Amino acid sequence: MFNHISIIGCGLIGSSILRAIEDKKLGFEISVFDKSSRVSDYLKKNFSAKVCTNLPDAVKNSDLTIISSPLSSYKEILLSIKSNLKKNSILTDTGSAKKEINKIINNFSLENIHWIASHPIAGTEYSGPEAGSSKLFNNRWCILSAEKRVSKDQISKLENFWTKLGSKTKFMSFEDHDYVLSLTSHLPHAVAYSIVRTAISNEDKFKNDVIQYSAGGLRDFTRIAASDPLMWKDIFINNSENILKVLDNYSKNLNEIKNAIKNKDSKKLLEIFSSTKKVRKEIIDAGQDTEKPDFGRK
Amino acid sequence: MFNHISIIGCGLIGSSILRAIEDKKLGFEISVFDKSSRVSDYLKKNFSAKVCTNLPDAVKNSDLTIISSPLSSYKEILLSIKSNLKKNSILTDTGSAKKEINKIINNFSLENIHWIASHPIAGTEYSGPEAGSSKLFNNRWCILSAEKRVSKDQISKLENFWTKLGSKTKFMSFEDHDYVLSLTSHLPHAVAYSIVRTAISNEDKFKNDVIQYSAGGLRDFTRIAASDPLMWKDIFINNSENILKVLDNYSKNLNEIKNAIKNKDSKKLLEIFSSTKKVRKEIIDAGQDTEKPDFGRK
Repeated sequence: MFNHISIIGCGLIGSSILRAIEDKKLGFEISVFDKSSRVSDYLKKNFSAKVCTNLPDAVKNSDLTIISSPLSSYKEILLSIKSNLKKNSILTDTGSAKKEINKIINNFSLENIHWIASHPIAGTEYSGPEAGSSKLFNNRWCILSAEKRVSKDQISKLENFWTKLGSKTKFMSFEDHDYVLSLTSHLPHAVAYSIVRTAISNEDKFKNDVIQYSAGGLRDFTRIAASDPLMWKDIFINNSENILKVLDNYSKNLNEIKNAIKNKDSKKLLEIFSSTKKVRKEIIDAGQDTEKPDFGRK
Repeated sequence: MFNHISIIGCGLIGSSILRAIEDKKLGFEISVFDKSSRVSDYLKKNFSAKVCTNLPDAVKNSDLTIISSPLSSYKEILLSIKSNLKKNSILTDTGSAKKEINKIINNFSLENIHWIASHPIAGTEYSGPEAGSSKLFNNRWCILSAEKRVSKDQISKLENFWTKLGSKTKFMSFEDHDYVLSLTSHLPHAVAYSIVRTAISNEDKFKNDVIQYSAGGLRDFTRIAASDPLMWKDIFINNSENILKVLDNYSKNLNEIKNAIKNKDSKKLLEIFSSTKKVRKEIIDAGQDTEKPDFGRK
């Protein structure tokens, strides 16, 4: 498949790729680079991969280069590595927004490089290499996107790589990816950030009570709203068009509920709440969550 | 403590009280009533409590009467039981909104009855007696509220009862309860219903993709939005004033994020996301959630 792989950025996702490769004994030669010396030290202590102190060196001879750092760092990284990328190698990433990133990469006019975007739908509320897990990708989807000019063979090679890490893969256009993810992930995060800021204000004399009794729903949102700020800032800026569109639709749905509450319209409220109950069944049927009741995590 | 207890309404919460009493061998004589014959049959088969077919009979001789049915049923229940409530007994409930309910009960001018509201902050996304658990209240908060005229002795008796079921108790005014719960529970539910309706529309050609890739955040909201529609319709109508107020504050916070996205204002987005990250630590420090990462439930 690949002889040599390089990973640029070794936070939660990058280090999980590294862990999965070592754990599953996939036998690749690996070079890693992280601009943080703290992370580099951690990697040297915990992994057998070659930890590079110079970014262009890390990608030399790599058959697969994986960028796994915040979206806002891509331009600088590409400027630094573009002359060192191996002819006919695959370049991929693990970012959560694709259309704008594809434009950036196209602007570099990389020759004889197969650029195929990857998005492993996996993660936790933590960041950094210590938070990684070799099992992070097990049974999770990884969405791949590429321009039409990229050959099927190359896409298959990358699909095969993610499958070996434990993922299920799916191919989607850059545009479709960004729209679907704006609904499944970016909207929920925007909403979670807003709700936590509304519910927990240092000026509110009930602040401690709100924290104390957060098990009634709020608790779950605080987890989502604890995700890496830098990563999410980049996602919101890179997928702004879709996110603003779905936020407008969301505000309409919220106003519908607001008006039904204002008018004490029982019939309308029942209709709204019954419609969302049905959706839950579809999520469980699709294997995306368990039907076991949630008594709160231990 | 109490010789005889009656439970009116045996869904998730009522049946969990019954299970906890039997499981912990608290030794009360228990009468239960549920207007559904299906539920009554289930209770007869699975519990040793006396299952009454006539509501007024169920509360006769009870030292503690617990109403555990939707808020919209309280008036009818009270009309039916008021003449049969035992002198000097305690009347409580398990509802999620208190101020309006207190008005309703005050209007009945029950004489020699100690009305003390209870709200066990416990539950799952399921309903019905089959969904109950004897462990539901373990280590969960139960908030009690009462008018000033109610004696401390009576409140202590009820606190003691909830403690025996496994709960930690806290006393709060009806008004404070409704405000705090509008933030910790009612706002999150309003938001979850809106987000699920926005994200999953039968008209959207990406509906199946959205369900397939819901692990990125949406999944958790579908669980909250699967809660009992009838119960939630009642909560939204009974606590409408607080809920509308916090929804307005919420919309302001959401607009702040929207504007930052529109203006691609990185600094503002980072500031917002960093502020909510801090809150998570406070929730964990308060013992309201685990700090273990959430890889998705199995």
